[in-house]
Amino acid sequence: MTSHMHQAAPTQFVEASSIRFAYRRFGKAGGVPLVFNMHFMGTMDHWDPAVTDAFAKDREVILFDNAGVSSSSGEVPETFAQMGANAMAFIKALGLKQIDALGFSIGGLVAQEITLQAPDLVRRLILVGTGPRSGESMDTGTPEGKEIFGATYANPDDLWLRVHFTPSDASQAAGREFVKRFRLRSTNRDPEVSQAAALAQRAAIGRWGAKRDHAWDYLKTIKQPVLVVNGSNDVIIYTINSYILQQNLPNAQLIIYPDSAHGSLFQYPQLFVRHVSMFLDQDQ
Amino acid sequence: MTSHMHQAAPTQFVEASSIRFAYRRFGKAGGVPLVFNMHFMGTMDHWDPAVTDAFAKDREVILFDNAGVSSSSGEVPETFAQMGANAMAFIKALGLKQIDALGFSIGGLVAQEITLQAPDLVRRLILVGTGPRSGESMDTGTPEGKEIFGATYANPDDLWLRVHFTPSDASQAAGREFVKRFRLRSTNRDPEVSQAAALAQRAAIGRWGAKRDHAWDYLKTIKQPVLVVNGSNDVIIYTINSYILQQNLPNAQLIIYPDSAHGSLFQYPQLFVRHVSMFLDQDQ
Repeated sequence: MTSHMHQAAPTQFVEASSIRFAYRRFGKAGGVPLVFNMHFMGTMDHWDPAVTDAFAKDREVILFDNAGVSSSSGEVPETFAQMGANAMAFIKALGLKQIDALGFSIGGLVAQEITLQAPDLVRRLILVGTGPRSGESMDTGTPEGKEIFGATYANPDDLWLRVHFTPSDASQAAGREFVKRFRLRSTNRDPEVSQAAALAQRAAIGRWGAKRDHAWDYLKTIKQPVLVVNGSNDVIIYTINSYILQQNLPNAQLIIYPDSAHGSLFQYPQLFVRHVSMFLDQDQ
Repeated sequence: MTSHMHQAAPTQFVEASSIRFAYRRFGKAGGVPLVFNMHFMGTMDHWDPAVTDAFAKDREVILFDNAGVSSSSGEVPETFAQMGANAMAFIKALGLKQIDALGFSIGGLVAQEITLQAPDLVRRLILVGTGPRSGESMDTGTPEGKEIFGATYANPDDLWLRVHFTPSDASQAAGREFVKRFRLRSTNRDPEVSQAAALAQRAAIGRWGAKRDHAWDYLKTIKQPVLVVNGSNDVIIYTINSYILQQNLPNAQLIIYPDSAHGSLFQYPQLFVRHVSMFLDQDQ
């Protein structure tokens, strides 16, 4: 067990494919590490310590900035295939032979690409608040998402109260706790994602979401056990996309939480970590 | 803790609404008991001891035959409203003030009716392999269901291999283990459901499933926490109905298991009991 956890883990660097990748690694070493893939406009600091530290008690946790994001060098490519290839290069540069991959939102698209491109590298896959290629409203983005990301906020962090949580009192209260938690780390925070990086991510989302024939056939080739998780009312990547993932993946379990949105893992961190831990450790 | 479990629990009787209800009660008394509501053509013996005995370690389990079914007297009514009223009479006759209700298949329709008619009686609700009023293909029944229930089987128990399990090797192997388990009880087994009882259940299913306007509005009045569970490929009550339940209930969690059908709880008994126990015990 490394002594530092989420708040104190130093940002380290490793070079691969001419990119200097920033990462943090903590928790109980010795098993299959859990590699976290971040959402749109997110850095390592946008993960919830209530999630990462709870996992770190039983397994090694690896957070990283993909190419062109925050503390990592390089540029954000305009395809998820290339983001997956970059992530793979990072993982291999750490000398890892096998990982469990957790992807949240567009991190879920990266995690799918890693699994498709390097099936032997990924033992199990967790897809949270995400969707398949040509998923429902993933080409244009949802109208709610455009409104939420297009608005201005007196406190910039309040953006995430609307992205990740429902308007209910209970969900907003959980959201305010989450915002406090992800601000707890006071030193060596990641810089915010640049405008150019966000635009490239957006372009990649449009390509991923573009309508195509037999769009979901590729999911049949993902043989790993997959856990798909979402909130009941995700308005960023509609919840039905999680159902579509489950129905088209050959070996997927789906969990949908009540009165929750895109960031269900931050609303129910204890429950989420228990469900995911059961999935990662299960033998039936 | 009663010393007898699923295999040895005596069939007891209690009278209410002029019906002599057959039931079995076992497990750890003292908390909120878990009352099981059975599927089409099922008796107390069609529950899986791997499920009921696992629950019984931590809570009291109550199995019963509703009116007109197997060892209980009376007739099967042709509405689920009346089946719910009968179940409620049975529960109150036991002197219970609060229960957790688990309903599987048409037992899920009964459990919904109990909750609607006696909201103070039900603490939490578990709905497995079931659906809402006017659910998808619930008026006519599914073509797959008609074929499966219409076929004849050299070994009559093999019906349940097709009702509850998918055609995959893994699911069928789990099915054969289940069939062995539900035959383990050797004494005081319940008689099979009569043809008249099965026909009345079918008539009630047709009424429940009939198309109506604003069919799912009633779900908003169920304020209890609900756990909805199904297999990925339920061809008896299509899996999408579980998604519809989750989306329309105000406080519902959904879990869908991979490569499984109507009887997902019998395919993954350990996982199911852990998930349900977490739900029943959770405080977040």
